Amino acid sequence: MRGKFAPVKALIFDVFGTVVDWRGSIIRETGTLARAKKLDLDPAAFADAWRAGYQPAMARVRSGELGWTKIDALHRMILDDLLVKFGVRGLKAAEIDHLNRVWHRLAPWPDARAGLKALKKSRIIGTLSNGNVSLLANMAKSGGLPWDVIFSGEIFHHYKPDPETYLGACELLSLDPAEVMMVAAHKSDLMAAKACGLATAFVRRPLEHGAGIKTDLKAERAFDINADDFLDLARRLGP
Amino acid sequence: MRGKFAPVKALIFDVFGTVVDWRGSIIRETGTLARAKKLDLDPAAFADAWRAGYQPAMARVRSGELGWTKIDALHRMILDDLLVKFGVRGLKAAEIDHLNRVWHRLAPWPDARAGLKALKKSRIIGTLSNGNVSLLANMAKSGGLPWDVIFSGEIFHHYKPDPETYLGACELLSLDPAEVMMVAAHKSDLMAAKACGLATAFVRRPLEHGAGIKTDLKAERAFDINADDFLDLARRLGP
Repeated sequence: MRGKFAPVKALIFDVFGTVVDWRGSIIRETGTLARAKKLDLDPAAFADAWRAGYQPAMARVRSGELGWTKIDALHRMILDDLLVKFGVRGLKAAEIDHLNRVWHRLAPWPDARAGLKALKKSRIIGTLSNGNVSLLANMAKSGGLPWDVIFSGEIFHHYKPDPETYLGACELLSLDPAEVMMVAAHKSDLMAAKACGLATAFVRRPLEHGAGIKTDLKAERAFDINADDFLDLARRLGP
Repeated sequence: MRGKFAPVKALIFDVFGTVVDWRGSIIRETGTLARAKKLDLDPAAFADAWRAGYQPAMARVRSGELGWTKIDALHRMILDDLLVKFGVRGLKAAEIDHLNRVWHRLAPWPDARAGLKALKKSRIIGTLSNGNVSLLANMAKSGGLPWDVIFSGEIFHHYKPDPETYLGACELLSLDPAEVMMVAAHKSDLMAAKACGLATAFVRRPLEHGAGIKTDLKAERAFDINADDFLDLARRLGP
């Protein structure tokens, strides 16, 4: 008997927030740095401000104000502003470089590695992230994420949610969009993938923005699957 | 003490002939098919003719006669001609499709898996092949090849040895060409990579064209490393 999801031959994943806990990771690293350097810094506010700069930075590329730019470079532009805003002084250039690459070292959610291993047994698994390829490759190595393929907006010179990213990934997979499932903790990403004909799986990540912050976790009929984590997703997808 | 090859942070590999034994794999599969279907077919001649059609097919894309075309489609065009030429009749469409995808199932050379595992401990490893992305991803799954990243001419819409492929891979790795080593069993591929500033490793594959066929295996000073196989390459590169 073919299961309901038999046509799905590949899964592509949003990464920041869906696979890895960007906020917790950045809080930990900036907290450690702040203690070592005796900086008066709220690591949570710093993490949130860094992430908040991300959409506006991509908008500068979309508008044509900036040419195509890797997320590493956007993160660095935002970071340079934040260091001034938060009054952080005295970091050496190599220390700022290292801090900027915290995004290469983000820790996976507790279920992510085991869930991805289960999911890759009978299907291709890959990223589809706005993070640049080297960021995603380094993160996979440091976090033990067993991707079959790494797809990034960088390959298509478009950021999500531009259709070129979803359709570009399907083209490189040599699959029809209906054979590819987009997995994300963010509904806007899934709706954009769905508009391109991809299957969709919503994974709840209630702690993405921190404990006590209300996040939209409601299951939606618009998505093919609504799951609690990657292990739940593997169970629902079936073999 | 930093070793001689300390700057090399990533290795990118030619695949057909360097990582996998295309000829032996195709001989085995077409031999099995010929026996099952009672075809009068020389599997070795068939494998060699299929491979011989590859450069002329890419030349049709290079000249502009064909638009950008996946290797899967080029392999199929060559195969359709060969079936006529070799007088093969009576294969169903699904059987021809399956035969064409033998290139997704090519077997790694005996040292390849263990060598790649050793090499990926402290460096990024990836493909740089004219094979399309889905071919390379399926091959990695069937052959257990532990790539960190899959790069293909398909991503750049250029085939090797066009410089766009070597430089495109370095750009996606966010590395200088001198930090990236091209690994291949074919000297022309390495010379083209070297011209782009990449480090180079020549790996001898004396059986690529079959036992008793003379292949150019001479070590060259032009290359940073000349190795007997991937395990030898890992030893010479050092940690």
